[in-house]
Amino acid sequence: MFESAQVGHAVDKDTYEAEEPLLREALLEAQYALKAQARFPVLLLINGIEGAGKGETVKLLAEWMDPRLIRVESFYSQTDEERSHPPAWRYWRKLPPKGRMGVFFGNWYSEMLHDRVHDRLDDAGLERALDHAQRLERLLTDDGMLLFKFWFHLSRKQMQARLDSLKDDPLHSWRISPLDWQQSKTYDSYVRHGEHVLRRSSRDHAPWYVIEGADERYRNLAVGRILLEGLQAALAQQPAAVAPPHSAPVAASLDGRNLLDSLDLSQSLSKGDYKRRLLEEQGRLSQLMRDRKLRERAVVAVFEGHDAAGKGGAVRRVTGALDPRLYRVVPVAAPTDEEQAQPWLWRFWRNVPEHGNLTIFDRSWYGRVLVERVEGFCSPAEWLRAYDEINDFEEQLVEAGVVVVKFWLSIDKQTQLERFEAREKDPLKRFKITEEDWRNREKWDAYNLAVNDMVARTSTEIAPWTLIEANDKRFARVKVLRTLGDALEAARDG
Amino acid sequence: MFESAQVGHAVDKDTYEAEEPLLREALLEAQYALKAQARFPVLLLINGIEGAGKGETVKLLAEWMDPRLIRVESFYSQTDEERSHPPAWRYWRKLPPKGRMGVFFGNWYSEMLHDRVHDRLDDAGLERALDHAQRLERLLTDDGMLLFKFWFHLSRKQMQARLDSLKDDPLHSWRISPLDWQQSKTYDSYVRHGEHVLRRSSRDHAPWYVIEGADERYRNLAVGRILLEGLQAALAQQPAAVAPPHSAPVAASLDGRNLLDSLDLSQSLSKGDYKRRLLEEQGRLSQLMRDRKLRERAVVAVFEGHDAAGKGGAVRRVTGALDPRLYRVVPVAAPTDEEQAQPWLWRFWRNVPEHGNLTIFDRSWYGRVLVERVEGFCSPAEWLRAYDEINDFEEQLVEAGVVVVKFWLSIDKQTQLERFEAREKDPLKRFKITEEDWRNREKWDAYNLAVNDMVARTSTEIAPWTLIEANDKRFARVKVLRTLGDALEAARDG
Repeated sequence: MFESAQVGHAVDKDTYEAEEPLLREALLEAQYALKAQARFPVLLLINGIEGAGKGETVKLLAEWMDPRLIRVESFYSQTDEERSHPPAWRYWRKLPPKGRMGVFFGNWYSEMLHDRVHDRLDDAGLERALDHAQRLERLLTDDGMLLFKFWFHLSRKQMQARLDSLKDDPLHSWRISPLDWQQSKTYDSYVRHGEHVLRRSSRDHAPWYVIEGADERYRNLAVGRILLEGLQAALAQQPAAVAPPHSAPVAASLDGRNLLDSLDLSQSLSKGDYKRRLLEEQGRLSQLMRDRKLRERAVVAVFEGHDAAGKGGAVRRVTGALDPRLYRVVPVAAPTDEEQAQPWLWRFWRNVPEHGNLTIFDRSWYGRVLVERVEGFCSPAEWLRAYDEINDFEEQLVEAGVVVVKFWLSIDKQTQLERFEAREKDPLKRFKITEEDWRNREKWDAYNLAVNDMVARTSTEIAPWTLIEANDKRFARVKVLRTLGDALEAARDG
Repeated sequence: MFESAQVGHAVDKDTYEAEEPLLREALLEAQYALKAQARFPVLLLINGIEGAGKGETVKLLAEWMDPRLIRVESFYSQTDEERSHPPAWRYWRKLPPKGRMGVFFGNWYSEMLHDRVHDRLDDAGLERALDHAQRLERLLTDDGMLLFKFWFHLSRKQMQARLDSLKDDPLHSWRISPLDWQQSKTYDSYVRHGEHVLRRSSRDHAPWYVIEGADERYRNLAVGRILLEGLQAALAQQPAAVAPPHSAPVAASLDGRNLLDSLDLSQSLSKGDYKRRLLEEQGRLSQLMRDRKLRERAVVAVFEGHDAAGKGGAVRRVTGALDPRLYRVVPVAAPTDEEQAQPWLWRFWRNVPEHGNLTIFDRSWYGRVLVERVEGFCSPAEWLRAYDEINDFEEQLVEAGVVVVKFWLSIDKQTQLERFEAREKDPLKRFKITEEDWRNREKWDAYNLAVNDMVARTSTEIAPWTLIEANDKRFARVKVLRTLGDALEAARDG
């Protein structure tokens, strides 16, 4: 894979000087079109051999183009906030918004390669890291991101020569980091694993570009042209309606039976039982959240349910048991404009709790496959893709030690009607019922189909759905608390 | 000050049970009105004696009100990201947006008191901390924030009794932190300094409420009522036009002379001199930015100037000297909706660089006293207030070790006209000139008056303005680089 980047590519001065100004202008123009369209972001991953011109190339791009529209991030050392979140969190929070360019040094590839070379990862670990990277890149490019992966290469001999020539030059020696010297010792291992990583992670939607780094002029023109062609093609492309790969509803059932309908909604608790068990469960939850063993974990509780199913009341019975410094309730409503300039999962990533904390999502990322699906706010291709994106997201949470608990609060249509009417009569609760609730109610069957699909496709062994029979609020609240307590207990003992 | 909180306040059960549901409903209603109006944020600072019910009261408020609209933050330990920014940064980034409530535990008062009691601050240090707190609170409340400062109090005897009673109760012992036990030893010192802090920081716009903490019912009703009355009053208030305290232009001059006009714009550099000196200065800057002594500092460079004065070109000559991993260019345009829900300085606070980094603001917080003043985007009261807010902001940066360099690039009206016309003729630069530029040009004199005022009021000994004679771009660029280099050199040697 690297052979073609060791042939001694070079560009002569005249050619360079003829082409450079044209390239510059065209890049600048493309950059402004990118900003004006604001349809997608551009991300450059910068990897490769130290001394092969990574820093210099990015510096040059910032000179050629408008540096106000480029944001360069490096991820060499983790901050403690980053360490107390799932690994991908630090990348998510630095993603460029639509219309802008981001450059990631020290990205996920640097991380996995460095760890592999220094034996902090074995082969299986490297495969897992590659798999995570693939899923992240797939999600980002599906969302429209234009992703460039550059590998700057040098042969061993070229590298040594370059380091030697740089080290005595005060204007350029900043380009050598302690890492460089280290790498000169691990070159063979780095290249061998690098080749494997590149092969496994080159995809049509996110190919690797291997750039021979020895000749500065060649390197500059090569990167510039690749970037320009990619940008121009993406800018010219009309966003086509993507046909969904499978358009049959997933959980449509031939016999009319489904999971939601199979719930026994008549289950209930007497007032006395409720009081006693509520206190018991709240006490248990309160103790569990203070358990030392759970300090290095975090908890995510998702509340979804029919309108008027009692989500708010259940949430308050949970928070009532907890120290307010340790939980946060995130109500999910329309995204802000900063959120809209990012992939749809970004606004949930930014709310992932840090170690020791619990975040309750009052509605959640499942909106994508519920309301957005039913109301047509996203395309079928988008919501069909979302099931996998959600499962990946939750897998990352769970792998990072986050306990994920998901509740669907289910009521029947008659109960909803009674609650809607009761709310309309109660001056204090009238604000809770809107025209939209009545409209949603008309789509009861479509919503239920979506819920059945959702449960069928996202109730996984690591993050199962718990369906809550919620016609009786007391029964529902106790079951929510008990489930949460069980999950925390399992995490503590596991 | 604390005497009235040691008289043994208590509320009997019947009174409590009669009042509590009404208070709850009214608070909930106020909270929804707050959300609906979205005119201002509410912030509760929670301080006082450990064991006096701080945590419990906040927990109760979250139970009474809608926890989705309250965000509780505690600041007990600093993260490393927080440590590499000015001290106030961690508070700024957690401020509640308009329409929401924030609760700050472990806030600036906890910090200063804790440091004073443990002799990490002397009296003078405490005064400085108090002064900073006052300025921050003044800024926030001027911006519309409704700020409540609660001090929960217990006499020494009450405190000891409370700690003893809690420690054996599994459901409530989470309320005791290691800090509590510590404080039982430092009670006298804590109360003495606390009294001083409260006296010095109680202001009409942000008064302290001292709550006796021994009786839970009393405490709950007291806090609830204060909060409700404050909320209702603020919600009912129509935002009145505030008369500016001084409406005469600050730098208006009787004799027609002013600073901008006194610049010698004819200064220039030959092409040869320019090339040589540019390289020299870039080399110096590049070396300085890598100096170990400056690793614990950060740099903020502000670029303001007439339209077409050459800000972009100057910025690129600066970035051209630097490793792109160490700088960021922040172009200041219209605020996003998340930014609009915060005090006006918030969007600059969020872009303050961390140690070792340089942030270039292409336009800046000075927009408040330039374009926003001239175009009437904010009221005279607001921009008149902004001078002090800006000076405070920059003082905080400088105190935290940030080098602040501010450039005004000045050209004359004729030069601007020539550049505008040249831009319109150049197909590559045409995007740089808009109708707005021509409109701004018509207000040349108003802008110049604003610039003169700005320099007069914000060119301070810690963050002086450098006026750049920019009719000749070469002269301007070299002067910008030289000034920046001088400032970094002074910081390195200082």
